[in-house]
Amino acid sequence: MGLVVALLQLNPTVGDLAGNAAEVERAVALAAANGADLAITSELVISGYPPRDLLRDPEFIQQCADVTAAIETPIPLIVGTPLPPTSDRHLPGNGSMRIVPGRKAKVATRKQLLPTYDVFDELRYFEPDKAPGILRLSENLSIGVTICEDAWQHAGEVPADYDADPIEQLAAWQHQGEPLALSVNLSSSPYHLHKEGTRGDVVRAAAKTLGHPYLLCNQIGGNDDLLFDGRSLAAWPDGRMIQAPSWCAGVLLVDIEDGDGDAARWLPWPDGKCCTECNCKVECVGVGSEPSVPESGVDLLAAITTGLGDYCRKSGIKKLVLGMSGGLDSSVCAAIAVRAVGAKNVLGLSMPSRYSSDHSIADAEATAKALGMELHTHSITALHQAAEAELNDELVDGNPVARENIQSRLRGMMVMAAANSRGAMAVTTGNKSELAMGYCTLYGDMVGGYAPIGDLYKSEVYDVARALNREAERFGETPPITESTLTKPPSAELAPDQTDQDTLPPYETLDAILHAHIENGASKSTLIASDFDETLVNWILERLNANEHKRWQMAPAPRVSNRAFGQGWRQPLAAKK
Amino acid sequence: MGLVVALLQLNPTVGDLAGNAAEVERAVALAAANGADLAITSELVISGYPPRDLLRDPEFIQQCADVTAAIETPIPLIVGTPLPPTSDRHLPGNGSMRIVPGRKAKVATRKQLLPTYDVFDELRYFEPDKAPGILRLSENLSIGVTICEDAWQHAGEVPADYDADPIEQLAAWQHQGEPLALSVNLSSSPYHLHKEGTRGDVVRAAAKTLGHPYLLCNQIGGNDDLLFDGRSLAAWPDGRMIQAPSWCAGVLLVDIEDGDGDAARWLPWPDGKCCTECNCKVECVGVGSEPSVPESGVDLLAAITTGLGDYCRKSGIKKLVLGMSGGLDSSVCAAIAVRAVGAKNVLGLSMPSRYSSDHSIADAEATAKALGMELHTHSITALHQAAEAELNDELVDGNPVARENIQSRLRGMMVMAAANSRGAMAVTTGNKSELAMGYCTLYGDMVGGYAPIGDLYKSEVYDVARALNREAERFGETPPITESTLTKPPSAELAPDQTDQDTLPPYETLDAILHAHIENGASKSTLIASDFDETLVNWILERLNANEHKRWQMAPAPRVSNRAFGQGWRQPLAAKK
Repeated sequence: MGLVVALLQLNPTVGDLAGNAAEVERAVALAAANGADLAITSELVISGYPPRDLLRDPEFIQQCADVTAAIETPIPLIVGTPLPPTSDRHLPGNGSMRIVPGRKAKVATRKQLLPTYDVFDELRYFEPDKAPGILRLSENLSIGVTICEDAWQHAGEVPADYDADPIEQLAAWQHQGEPLALSVNLSSSPYHLHKEGTRGDVVRAAAKTLGHPYLLCNQIGGNDDLLFDGRSLAAWPDGRMIQAPSWCAGVLLVDIEDGDGDAARWLPWPDGKCCTECNCKVECVGVGSEPSVPESGVDLLAAITTGLGDYCRKSGIKKLVLGMSGGLDSSVCAAIAVRAVGAKNVLGLSMPSRYSSDHSIADAEATAKALGMELHTHSITALHQAAEAELNDELVDGNPVARENIQSRLRGMMVMAAANSRGAMAVTTGNKSELAMGYCTLYGDMVGGYAPIGDLYKSEVYDVARALNREAERFGETPPITESTLTKPPSAELAPDQTDQDTLPPYETLDAILHAHIENGASKSTLIASDFDETLVNWILERLNANEHKRWQMAPAPRVSNRAFGQGWRQPLAAKK
Repeated sequence: MGLVVALLQLNPTVGDLAGNAAEVERAVALAAANGADLAITSELVISGYPPRDLLRDPEFIQQCADVTAAIETPIPLIVGTPLPPTSDRHLPGNGSMRIVPGRKAKVATRKQLLPTYDVFDELRYFEPDKAPGILRLSENLSIGVTICEDAWQHAGEVPADYDADPIEQLAAWQHQGEPLALSVNLSSSPYHLHKEGTRGDVVRAAAKTLGHPYLLCNQIGGNDDLLFDGRSLAAWPDGRMIQAPSWCAGVLLVDIEDGDGDAARWLPWPDGKCCTECNCKVECVGVGSEPSVPESGVDLLAAITTGLGDYCRKSGIKKLVLGMSGGLDSSVCAAIAVRAVGAKNVLGLSMPSRYSSDHSIADAEATAKALGMELHTHSITALHQAAEAELNDELVDGNPVARENIQSRLRGMMVMAAANSRGAMAVTTGNKSELAMGYCTLYGDMVGGYAPIGDLYKSEVYDVARALNREAERFGETPPITESTLTKPPSAELAPDQTDQDTLPPYETLDAILHAHIENGASKSTLIASDFDETLVNWILERLNANEHKRWQMAPAPRVSNRAFGQGWRQPLAAKK
């Protein structure tokens, strides 16, 4: 049996330094009790990632370093933490400290490559280091230490151009006669669908170049508008790889001399939630040359459940309220809300109008019943009539969309009244396809502090709905999304016999074009060359740009940078006066 | 008479490359016709500043360079523009091109110091240059060229630490025997109150170090959430300085060998708006060792008028709608709206409830009349009753604030209905003090695409109101803000006999504490040591943090970085379904 390294895959809360340090202490104790010789955390585990503006406060940085230095551990431990600047003219470091029992805590390394694109803004907060991350743990044991991005340029997986390549630096160091037993990477690598493949390429490229095992510890959970899926990794130079479970906290023990996986053990976190797939059994550790690839709907369901659940737990939100129309989006959001805070803490409002169909009301009721949550019915008819009477002069010769929006805004007012009254947060139910097209009402169906499916295209919402139903069937429960909800044409029901497709192209086509443009950066000419209809491409991009234009004011920006998986548009929480 | 340099102080629109280039051509023609030998623009005048995500599009960058190279000019001209990257692994440059009649346009310089703090994110978009900006215009004329931040580190006016000091580089270059006649600085230096003093320190420090004149050309106008005040500058090594007018486009002609200002001329832009203070007479060019310091209310009035006016003009918004309660905030916003788009394009809504006082309605009417704008009255009483009846079960045992919010949200719905119906943008009327304290209703009085006074503390709103009234008096018009509005205790009128001070501390105290904390970064202990009451400081900071916490989700961030003068919180424009 060789050196056993523990990857502490935890779920830190941004700003909760004492709580995060306590989690690290519990995890390293568990690792040591199970035979680990050395443990590493994820990137910035003490502050939680991303700490953003907190990093502008020198007192906060010092507190991070102090809390880290005070961590108690029975085995050597490398902890990711913000570090005080090296001079008063410099920014803090994104680094790590080495905690060895019986010795004084010491700064180990600082991150060299600071991503400043997409969801990252690290040059805003940190000073880049220039030295390779070599850590001598004992007379006979030196290891390489890198932090997240440090390893990505080497695999050609970054859009930036850095002067340094920390993996090559470690390789050069080895060639100069300093043997490294292994290298580690402290990561806070945000989730997007299918990212596990890219992350696997990164660790394998590093292991191959270095000629020794390369171990990556990733954070899990939701912080601010980012999600982290875990899936910590160990790779060997010959391409073998082990992957920890997704979406759950725990400790992965890796025997670095035994790369066939027999010695890899997953210790689930005692009071942590389990991932959807595996119930945290040891078997879920994928062994082999390819990381396990989950079915999309299942992975997205775990992702958005984690996002809303962590948002509520970490923000102190106990109760949720949402409007339920019987349509796909609000039905799926209700199911996610129930998974996030429990059925007894979720209130749905059915708010029929003169244009609501019977099946809409029945579908909402069936979903609420299947989920075991409360559903209150409040008609908007009387308010709608009163509003049209009072505002007749404003509306009579105007844009007819103003009348449609009134209904949506009265519903928004009702959702907020119920939420404010009971101290709950409203959840808004829009999906990425309709938000991108502006097919939604500002201050209407857009009210809410959190958009659980705001970063899912409509077709992905169907995938999640089916995953929810399959899961219910597996446990012998009633599938929450009714057959009618899954099969009827989507409609806002703000005018007689209205359907989404009166205004929008079929979602299958819309989503394909939006995905190519937003996620992959395909330009208009590329899209047209890809056999999409030119008129349709022009219509969609014009509407998208007009909507971006509205959202981001006057810059006619062509797209949102949104390749990493955010939790939808960042919206203020349910403010009370 | 020596070399005459023209500073083209223009108001570019982000993304309007052809329009911006045409403005440069017109301005340089005017300068040449008035005897200029050389002209310079502000920073990134071709793309407009800040171009933000547009810079991620390689086609956009190439278009900027192409449009710049095609500019026609009768005299040598230095134009600020994004520049294509020097290799496909690099980011674009924030640079300048040299356009000389009869010669091929050529890249002149690239910015070295890229601010990435506060409102700046330039390392996200640009590659920093490492070479000093020397430009040889003819056999006998070489000048130094710097771009905005390049000059600020030298004066000790940046929070960042850069490896290079471009002013020292130019000085070293001179010492090596290359004489520079002058140096210039292409700036997009955002406005905040009293920034003219700091900017003056920067140009004087550079002129002193370099031993030759230092000329700074700044942009004016509003772009996205930033405002630019112009006030281009020329400084001589002995401390003499000339400042161009604020808030208006035009050309400042500077004879660099005649630093007593006799040869400085201001050519106002033919169809540009004039600044409030000076009507663009030549006299407004401040000559002497100190830049002219305007009265705060007057300067802020010009700033927020420019902001809303440019926002509307550049976004294609012709009409505005806002709720008018007769209180200070909405009355001032109405006056700003009228200045921005004209009285006939502004609609006010008076929306009384059972709690509205008679003087509120009368004050709103008097203000609308003085401004010459339309005011429609729509009572919320019937809707309020219908809402309370329908929602009684939700409200009966709940937080009473939910009832107050209903009124505000019904008003928000009405404002949006009127705005959507006529294709107008809603203006939201909150000030920075109440927004910081969360003393406002999300989706209620916060609805609107633009917050004209969202970055003004309540006490500054009073300053602006008095400046508005003084200006009206000067022109023999009725002061728009009534005496009653100026003197009555502020109230939201959402409950019987309610005043702001039932909930908040006196604005004088609140504003002093908020200003010290938000603008100057004073910590809690600093505030208490400054003789503010400890209980009050704790109360305010807790409420501020809780509100930030809500706004920015879970990070308990202590403050908004808001030292530069933004146009209030960035909100989506009046979206239509």
